[in-house]
Amino acid sequence: MDIARSPLAQPFPAIPPIAGVTLRIARARYKDWDRADLTYAELAPGTAVAGLFTKNICCSSEVELGREQMKGGRARALVVNAGNSNAFTGYRGREAVEGIMAQVADHLGCAAAEVFVSSTGVIGVPLPQDKARAGIAAALTSEPCSWEDAAETIGTTDTFTKGAVAQAVIGGRTVTLAGIIKGSGMIAPDMATMLGYIFTDAAVEPAFLQACLSAANERTFSCITVDSDTSTSDTVLAFATGAAGNAPLASFDSEGADAFAAAIADICRQLALLVVRDGEGAQKLIEVRVSGAVSDASARRVGLAIANSPLVKTAIAGEDANWGRVVMAVGKAGEPADRDRLSIGFGGHWTAREGQPLANYDEAPVAEHLTGREIAVAVDLGLGDGQAVVWTCDLTHGYIAINADYRS
Amino acid sequence: MDIARSPLAQPFPAIPPIAGVTLRIARARYKDWDRADLTYAELAPGTAVAGLFTKNICCSSEVELGREQMKGGRARALVVNAGNSNAFTGYRGREAVEGIMAQVADHLGCAAAEVFVSSTGVIGVPLPQDKARAGIAAALTSEPCSWEDAAETIGTTDTFTKGAVAQAVIGGRTVTLAGIIKGSGMIAPDMATMLGYIFTDAAVEPAFLQACLSAANERTFSCITVDSDTSTSDTVLAFATGAAGNAPLASFDSEGADAFAAAIADICRQLALLVVRDGEGAQKLIEVRVSGAVSDASARRVGLAIANSPLVKTAIAGEDANWGRVVMAVGKAGEPADRDRLSIGFGGHWTAREGQPLANYDEAPVAEHLTGREIAVAVDLGLGDGQAVVWTCDLTHGYIAINADYRS
Repeated sequence: MDIARSPLAQPFPAIPPIAGVTLRIARARYKDWDRADLTYAELAPGTAVAGLFTKNICCSSEVELGREQMKGGRARALVVNAGNSNAFTGYRGREAVEGIMAQVADHLGCAAAEVFVSSTGVIGVPLPQDKARAGIAAALTSEPCSWEDAAETIGTTDTFTKGAVAQAVIGGRTVTLAGIIKGSGMIAPDMATMLGYIFTDAAVEPAFLQACLSAANERTFSCITVDSDTSTSDTVLAFATGAAGNAPLASFDSEGADAFAAAIADICRQLALLVVRDGEGAQKLIEVRVSGAVSDASARRVGLAIANSPLVKTAIAGEDANWGRVVMAVGKAGEPADRDRLSIGFGGHWTAREGQPLANYDEAPVAEHLTGREIAVAVDLGLGDGQAVVWTCDLTHGYIAINADYRS
Repeated sequence: MDIARSPLAQPFPAIPPIAGVTLRIARARYKDWDRADLTYAELAPGTAVAGLFTKNICCSSEVELGREQMKGGRARALVVNAGNSNAFTGYRGREAVEGIMAQVADHLGCAAAEVFVSSTGVIGVPLPQDKARAGIAAALTSEPCSWEDAAETIGTTDTFTKGAVAQAVIGGRTVTLAGIIKGSGMIAPDMATMLGYIFTDAAVEPAFLQACLSAANERTFSCITVDSDTSTSDTVLAFATGAAGNAPLASFDSEGADAFAAAIADICRQLALLVVRDGEGAQKLIEVRVSGAVSDASARRVGLAIANSPLVKTAIAGEDANWGRVVMAVGKAGEPADRDRLSIGFGGHWTAREGQPLANYDEAPVAEHLTGREIAVAVDLGLGDGQAVVWTCDLTHGYIAINADYRS
């Protein structure tokens, strides 16, 4: 089927080269696609790596191996296969990943554990080893490509190509972070979402890179949801080549560490929002801001209960300020809440305060807000200082059409 | 909008009168509907009552009061308002319910706590007290009506009228159970689902009636889901008038207690399945059978993760045997599972065994099964003896159309 480009799409940004990173793409022909489907990134010796992986128990071999590889803290290459997730394929799936790792390690003269592999696409079909081998051979001899080419090649049902850039100054040196990501469906919280890759020329110790990435995850990838379904393959990796020549960041005591952590958080937030903007069938980007909860974690769970509610998401699709459904979602979240202290608003206008509809509620400005592309939902629980922001998209006929007809 | 009758609808059964129960309906005109919207059931003095209520924290005053009233164990009347749920309406909502209780108690000469009230419909609009008062006055002076009339009157977005009947023999006497239920959207597990009422002429002590109802709930109402959204008003009440004259059932040691408990479970299962058959937009009834879990509770949670997955539900809507999405849902359930022991099947045919697609998998019989109205999904976790059956419906364009356009 032909899936229309998301009306929430954003243009691919101008991303400069990152010293120590070389990108290449090739056609492994995992599916009958007239496009490249294998992405290869070569990384300078000594590149630090950090990662986030799906919590789905039925995860792919790529995820299992990636988690083990993380212990070494160093990476020399990344391979991303699109069109086949290689998940739920038993020992044959694992053999395919180990074959890719060995082939690249042999070429680079590095340890296999320094070669990271991700795959995305249909579940349950072992990745064909012959196609992978030929694809990698082709990539290794191809001309380097742009960020946009690489970002496009890792996509599957994505309707637009997603990238982001951020910078930070560390000890007088400007370091750059480049990120690419793919994802549109099977997007749910409480994990590292979909396939996302961040590359920086900063010099960062692996443990601190992981700390920055994990902290950013809490407020970015873990705060988005498209359909509450957690993928078997979700992976976000960050690579720091060190080519910028700054004194390596080892902890928050290092000079420039705060600025770098802020830049990581910035690029993660950009990438996470791009995924929501390409949520399957999305017509509106929804920001749910929860305040007054007993803790930040509680606020996030309430926010996700709202963002995952099909009744809330269809109401917004219908441009209906149906705050009763928001009440329902707050109440089912399983978190502390008091119906008689609850306030709900849309687009900066309260519709209900402290457990009752506003006596002088004027629906006109709220109705106007709901006709837009970006919808703001505010919930104040009136209990404490906990707060969170969660992002999702509306639930439309497009989601049904994409998922009832397409074998992902 | 005009919502088509569910293709999974079942005809209303022949339900005999239950001695000690008199049904009446009237028009309170809560909404602009050309039909009765207020149901009144008068119950013989001494009628035992048991109940199940939503766990949604933002529940209605009807639910709060009903939970308190349960302590008395006796009921003389039930009033059900359709078109307005009276939820999230603060003290005005509570006053409206207390007004109805007082009016009926005054008429019957009973305690107000013996009058049970439920309301269903839009959230956030206080139930108009004048309309309720006039509606009840009209009901009290109207002719008794049929089970089908009463079942039709409690409905809102329901596309067909739902009733069930069961019988049991207690000490040589046949007792009858009659049930009516409404519900179509905002249906989720872990609670007593929607508005359901069971009436029996059996003599049963309230505590044992509650024990039977709670036990039945675990395998019926708590095992269905339409859209994962838990309503603010869900209520199931069981009334036992005692008119059959059997020796009152007080525990499982009483003669006929097992048969009665089985009949309660039977009627609860019938009623729960009728709600799924009228799930918003439903085109297929889906039974998810989970075995091999570490416990029954774990099996149920895995079953609900599958039944609530929008990707599984849209795949079945599209008649696609996409078992990879079932793997994903098992893995995200947060329950013990081992990818390499997992087996998945449809309609009695395994598609994957022990973590891998079947080598000789023949898709034809599975594809044929998926074209039907009733779909069976089987999951064997291969870990233990825990099992559960969960029911849901597919997710279709109809759900989007109903919920993006209708203010519930």
